[in-house]
Amino acid sequence: MAVLTLVPRSELDRVRTADLPADERLGLLADMCRLNALVAVKRAGSGHLGSSFSAMDVVSFLLFEELNTAALGFDHPDRDVYFSSKGHDVPGLYAALFALGVVPRERFLRLRRLGGLDGHPDIGVPGIEANSGSLGMGVSKGRGIAWAKRRLGRGGRVVVLVGDGELQEGQTWEGLQGAAHDRLAGLTVVVDRNELQSDRPTEEILALGALEEKLRAFGWHVASCDGHDPAALRAAFASFRDVHDRPQALVARTIKGKGVSFMEHPAALREGGGVYRWHAGAPDDEAFARAFAELQARIGERLARLGLEPLALEAVEPEAEAPAVALEGEPESGAGLRRAVSDEYVVEAYGEALVELAAEEERLVCLDADLASDCRVRAFELAYPGRFLECGIAEQDMVSVAAGLARHGLLPVVNSFAAFLAARANEQIYNQASEGTKVVYALHYAGLIPAGPGKSHQSLRDISLLGALPGMTVVQPASAAETRALLRWAVLEAEGPVALRLAIGPSPRRIDAPAEARPGRGAVLLEGGDAVLLAYGPVLLHEALTASELLAERGIRLAVVDQPWLDRFDPAWLLDLSARWERIFVLEDHAPVGGLGDALRRALPGREVAVFGVEGWPACGTPAEALRFHRLDGRSLAERIEEALG
Amino acid sequence: MAVLTLVPRSELDRVRTADLPADERLGLLADMCRLNALVAVKRAGSGHLGSSFSAMDVVSFLLFEELNTAALGFDHPDRDVYFSSKGHDVPGLYAALFALGVVPRERFLRLRRLGGLDGHPDIGVPGIEANSGSLGMGVSKGRGIAWAKRRLGRGGRVVVLVGDGELQEGQTWEGLQGAAHDRLAGLTVVVDRNELQSDRPTEEILALGALEEKLRAFGWHVASCDGHDPAALRAAFASFRDVHDRPQALVARTIKGKGVSFMEHPAALREGGGVYRWHAGAPDDEAFARAFAELQARIGERLARLGLEPLALEAVEPEAEAPAVALEGEPESGAGLRRAVSDEYVVEAYGEALVELAAEEERLVCLDADLASDCRVRAFELAYPGRFLECGIAEQDMVSVAAGLARHGLLPVVNSFAAFLAARANEQIYNQASEGTKVVYALHYAGLIPAGPGKSHQSLRDISLLGALPGMTVVQPASAAETRALLRWAVLEAEGPVALRLAIGPSPRRIDAPAEARPGRGAVLLEGGDAVLLAYGPVLLHEALTASELLAERGIRLAVVDQPWLDRFDPAWLLDLSARWERIFVLEDHAPVGGLGDALRRALPGREVAVFGVEGWPACGTPAEALRFHRLDGRSLAERIEEALG
Repeated sequence: MAVLTLVPRSELDRVRTADLPADERLGLLADMCRLNALVAVKRAGSGHLGSSFSAMDVVSFLLFEELNTAALGFDHPDRDVYFSSKGHDVPGLYAALFALGVVPRERFLRLRRLGGLDGHPDIGVPGIEANSGSLGMGVSKGRGIAWAKRRLGRGGRVVVLVGDGELQEGQTWEGLQGAAHDRLAGLTVVVDRNELQSDRPTEEILALGALEEKLRAFGWHVASCDGHDPAALRAAFASFRDVHDRPQALVARTIKGKGVSFMEHPAALREGGGVYRWHAGAPDDEAFARAFAELQARIGERLARLGLEPLALEAVEPEAEAPAVALEGEPESGAGLRRAVSDEYVVEAYGEALVELAAEEERLVCLDADLASDCRVRAFELAYPGRFLECGIAEQDMVSVAAGLARHGLLPVVNSFAAFLAARANEQIYNQASEGTKVVYALHYAGLIPAGPGKSHQSLRDISLLGALPGMTVVQPASAAETRALLRWAVLEAEGPVALRLAIGPSPRRIDAPAEARPGRGAVLLEGGDAVLLAYGPVLLHEALTASELLAERGIRLAVVDQPWLDRFDPAWLLDLSARWERIFVLEDHAPVGGLGDALRRALPGREVAVFGVEGWPACGTPAEALRFHRLDGRSLAERIEEALG
Repeated sequence: MAVLTLVPRSELDRVRTADLPADERLGLLADMCRLNALVAVKRAGSGHLGSSFSAMDVVSFLLFEELNTAALGFDHPDRDVYFSSKGHDVPGLYAALFALGVVPRERFLRLRRLGGLDGHPDIGVPGIEANSGSLGMGVSKGRGIAWAKRRLGRGGRVVVLVGDGELQEGQTWEGLQGAAHDRLAGLTVVVDRNELQSDRPTEEILALGALEEKLRAFGWHVASCDGHDPAALRAAFASFRDVHDRPQALVARTIKGKGVSFMEHPAALREGGGVYRWHAGAPDDEAFARAFAELQARIGERLARLGLEPLALEAVEPEAEAPAVALEGEPESGAGLRRAVSDEYVVEAYGEALVELAAEEERLVCLDADLASDCRVRAFELAYPGRFLECGIAEQDMVSVAAGLARHGLLPVVNSFAAFLAARANEQIYNQASEGTKVVYALHYAGLIPAGPGKSHQSLRDISLLGALPGMTVVQPASAAETRALLRWAVLEAEGPVALRLAIGPSPRRIDAPAEARPGRGAVLLEGGDAVLLAYGPVLLHEALTASELLAERGIRLAVVDQPWLDRFDPAWLLDLSARWERIFVLEDHAPVGGLGDALRRALPGREVAVFGVEGWPACGTPAEALRFHRLDGRSLAERIEEALG
């Protein structure tokens, strides 16, 4: 990667304070923020540019002109409150907060790094008003804030940005109806109507239909305008000041990727053959250079046209500690200890095996909630379009649809991220299971890594969330072969519902896990007589193996067991485990509560089982940072185990 | 209670097969089903008459005329599928299924009894197509069934009844948009538009606004009609046959309590001073007699007018084993072992203490999701209307609203049933807690009892659902005094979010639990040197004390400890516990996974902790039946402990 350059604060200040027509200033600032967001994402190795750019003119208008926060600051009780419900557009907001001096330079340059800026909004960052990133909560939260302001007699409006795809999430409609019932005139919702979801058109995934009519029928005052035109935004917000009896919705027509020609919808969609490439992930060097040059040129032209000095960029010092692996794609992942990443993804094996199984099991159908690419089910969709059901961003609906399908003779495999599926659709999963049918839940992106997106996306509770559900089996494979075997078992053999936890990133190393499903039985990957460490999944088994290798250097023999069955054990296997090792350790890619360790303690009454898990809130950062922070990297584990063994 | 009488199957058959005008037959059958539902609910001691009656004419039209199930049976793949999403109207449906001979007489007379008819729909009962009772899942599930029929080339339509209040649940709108996107013409939704929620008008709780417009904006074909007029229903369904490009919604205008004058809205609402009394619970003897007489008279008049023989009722044999406690109100509850129920309700103490605390802590605000009476927060609403926020049946919205309130200086206490709040709003609770604010979650109706409503309502997973959430404290008080103390602690002292589990029924006995909160410390209620049994909450502490009393008769001294802190322990207390007793037992009003037992095992490494919990799906029945079924009643526990002690 070439040396990166940034628009420094001084240059942003120069434009902010220049005597310019307001629209020119806002347009310039938006592009300068786009450029800085691009640099931050490139440096982070991941992030969401498409919607950062589509929302950038709205954010620019709000933060640099409309809201009182530039004047009052972000701690004043009478301040206007702005936040984005979708949250993944936060690189653009960070750039605006950097321009305002709210986020300092050194922190701005630490996007998705430990102690830096979270991959999704977190109120630990100055200027961030609400945690978001899991979709659909924003209108409700904004309603709460507006209600509190009214109750406490405080000044300030509340403006919530929501994605158009996000409107598929049912909670949004709960929030809309509630705010209308409360006649909360202090609440404004801006819909970033960019017409694209994660990588395909909203119209294809789950059409919004007559959006303005829907919002009006829900009791809101509705306006719409060009979301890239400061004058139009200004007029809309001005008109809202006359609305005193209801909340206001502004449908801001925007262009995803706005500001960089080849990232702009619809051209970018055509170029991608119907798939939008710039939703998430950092651009490669070539695309970055093109995007940077285009933004830089336009800023330069604007400055020249306005008779201002040319743009002075500032070189960005390289990271003191670059992440071990720079991944171009999203979600990011990687290894601890700077080890080379293998070319194996368990989730790739999952996607392939699902297509293969469909030929054998004709009842198999696949459900998705707008994460088909990340969940690797696009191949299934193409191979079996009549057996693929796209539910949009509506996990609860997806699960209950699956329940209906299962009741009437089909075998649904339901896909989403673990953090969303196991939590948001938890009651629906319980309801489905209570009907005695079988549904396979693919819980993608389970565990701590990748740690860049932050706590809205990291799933460290899902085993616990499903643990008390009668008849549910939770498994996590550690290799491509084991993934195929467990999915095969889940689809063809399991009698009840199965939750299949899947790591989403590349495996730090190939794990020599069994290629057959042996219910309740683990597999010894490394022998060792001093103690045994049970782990699961490619990420933490790698750390377990690393720990064992490090301990071997010090004469301690730590056996490592791959235990993909997280809540059930074969009695003979358990007896063997219990007899062979006096000291049993468990490594959780999960909180220490409710995971494999607790299950093992239930199965081995009176045996001491020491658990290493993700304590507290999961850290945001590179894989190495997050693992080290939680002392779950191989080196830390070796130390902890050595200490425990005395 | 006087001897009950029933409309026997033969009489229903007589009317079904009589040569009558269709509308007369349907009206008669509906009233006969109303009468039988009334009897079943009276006998059960609980159940939902208001919406059974409002939906009765729709159900009668569908099951006796419109749908093909009477001809094809309920197992045929080409059958029409009907179910109610709200589910609590199932007594009316059971009566219709009894009339069709699908539910046999002996089972019909075992409403809310073990092995009888579940309090909410369960597919274990013949003719029941879907488990429901937790609101908002039906449209999605119907969508799945309709999709499966289309995919598999099967005949039959899908008709889902939804409550009007239920439309507040966001998942409904997810399902509506998805079905419209799929152009599922085989799906019909009937809205039982009775304008009342659990006990107040929808318009007051959370107005639906322009309902037909909303449904149309969501892409549905919409009709509306008098939901008590068979001809109007027939015409509406006939018109739907011409709709081939979209699903159809029928807004059926109905009257809650229809068919019994004093249960009918709006008269009943006026009589109740703005509160509708007949949503749930069995009528007392006097009201039952009046309702019965009225229905019987109208049926008799109709028969006479149509020239048919008078109605011949059949006496109902008394229950072999009547429940220990016949409660008039809902939710029902009671004691094991036929012990007298005390007059103490922890939830009453909760409601009173909340009002008291509001005077001390002015930041305190109270949120409700249409369960204000059951959750005993009506008094708060009346005392502090400006600090009460009614969210309607929208638990996710309620929690995120609370998050917004907490971020801006208020201290929200959020109320709903544990099964709904901890599961459906789980991700929203996680999101709130991640902002580092404090919200108190009152998880009402936690645990196995009352067991009549069935598995949609019994909450045996909530501790597990919150266990892995960083910083969350879960407590359950056992007495009124302890309830006050723990609520006080949660509101005034706790630093993070608190989940307060509350039993909803009367306490089987007064538990002498501490009147002050001692974080992490249990209280010895009964001394005993042979072993210790830790339990929590009034229901299972009663069983624990009973077990100890029974064991004492056999010379075994079992100490009983009230341990209201379910996920944290004071180290000194733990040391004392651990030192005093070699044998430690835990009694969970929860699944054996993820509760107090698991927490204790984590805290006492290597110590054997034996857990008695609710294994598998919670049984539906009387309190005594459910406790005995799970072997958690005092007698069973005594046996199990004696056996464990050898």
